[in-house]
Amino acid sequence: MKNLLLASTSTLHGSDYLDYLLPELKLHFENCKTVLFIPYARPSGISHEEYTQKTALAFAKINITIKGIHEFEDPALAVQNAEGIFTGGGNTFLLVSQLYYYKIMITLKETLEKGTPYLGTSAGSNIAGLSMQTTNDMPIVYPPSFQTLGLIPFNLNVHFLDINSQSKHMGESRETRINEFLQFNNFPVLGLKEGSWLKIKKGKTILKGNLSAKLFRKNQTPLEIATETELSYIQ
Amino acid sequence: MKNLLLASTSTLHGSDYLDYLLPELKLHFENCKTVLFIPYARPSGISHEEYTQKTALAFAKINITIKGIHEFEDPALAVQNAEGIFTGGGNTFLLVSQLYYYKIMITLKETLEKGTPYLGTSAGSNIAGLSMQTTNDMPIVYPPSFQTLGLIPFNLNVHFLDINSQSKHMGESRETRINEFLQFNNFPVLGLKEGSWLKIKKGKTILKGNLSAKLFRKNQTPLEIATETELSYIQ
Repeated sequence: MKNLLLASTSTLHGSDYLDYLLPELKLHFENCKTVLFIPYARPSGISHEEYTQKTALAFAKINITIKGIHEFEDPALAVQNAEGIFTGGGNTFLLVSQLYYYKIMITLKETLEKGTPYLGTSAGSNIAGLSMQTTNDMPIVYPPSFQTLGLIPFNLNVHFLDINSQSKHMGESRETRINEFLQFNNFPVLGLKEGSWLKIKKGKTILKGNLSAKLFRKNQTPLEIATETELSYIQ
Repeated sequence: MKNLLLASTSTLHGSDYLDYLLPELKLHFENCKTVLFIPYARPSGISHEEYTQKTALAFAKINITIKGIHEFEDPALAVQNAEGIFTGGGNTFLLVSQLYYYKIMITLKETLEKGTPYLGTSAGSNIAGLSMQTTNDMPIVYPPSFQTLGLIPFNLNVHFLDINSQSKHMGESRETRINEFLQFNNFPVLGLKEGSWLKIKKGKTILKGNLSAKLFRKNQTPLEIATETELSYIQ
């Protein structure tokens, strides 16, 4: 049975990397001595090594060792054998390209469906949806497909922001972009604000954190969802 | 010789669609009775008909008739025969997908290289660059390639915004995204603010409008560019 934490962001403003999630991560990974880290999304272009070191420092606070997937000769085997897995944020186009390049998209999906505990932040959460098409990232590389893990029956929009009615900027708002997506695709999109995460465990999907989320469906008014709501009805 | 206007946005806050550009468009299209409109980017998912009607209303103010490319049986022939061409904003992934679907990417490039006057706004300006990879849009459809017209030897980032140092949002800033692009691609990116446009005429590329632009190059500090600067040195 799936055991996933899908967080909107790794970091809250004014606090350290992963700090706000550590109490939850301690429980989530309680049976893991080592967690496999997937650094492929490379935020700001940092190397796999740098990103893995940064993540290892944060996980050391809860006595968990981090191993980067790039340290293994066979990434698929590393996924299958992992006690727990964490995919960090960065650029979703790059992350998805790399998952296809190393031929581990399906292995990762199958492994997580069997119950290996998983944490995703930002891009690492995006890939749990049906497709990466509601990412906010720039298309810096061309992936072979936009299809992703499909561990949840909808898409996520991470770092979600409500419309800023004071803005004089004429670029599309996040809501406009999601509605454009829904003109061409018929599955729901959950806008997950920074500080929120989905906890998917024992067959239940629950919105965690202090904030509400926003659910978008084709031809429907968006719905505000309160924290602690059970979301298994969304499909 | 190329004769292009590439605008960051179609509309300034508090003013009507295309209004701020009309004096420039009157000159730019002075030899055109009719301009061919490419509505493929469909902002907010509006139909080709609606988008073309909206554009026709704006161009009527300068006594130019607008014909939508979707009204023609052979879009390539419509491009070749056009007195002038305007590609409107919306979703760049959709626009590029449609240009490939109708097999007019190369025809459009060749036609504009011969000197047919062209206006692009937002997504319609993005496609003048080497690739669409510095778009801000969501990947709502999967295009067969990210390569675009290459009418200028660099990429544009439209609706460009400087970093908001007051923001507590942890999603990537525009500048971070462009720098991630430059980690994986080695051509310049010009951040074009709303109200700015490039005028490419008689072999010269000039930054127009009241605002500065920002030039990003791989491994270099971004450069602020003053309005009226000649930009032909960028490559």
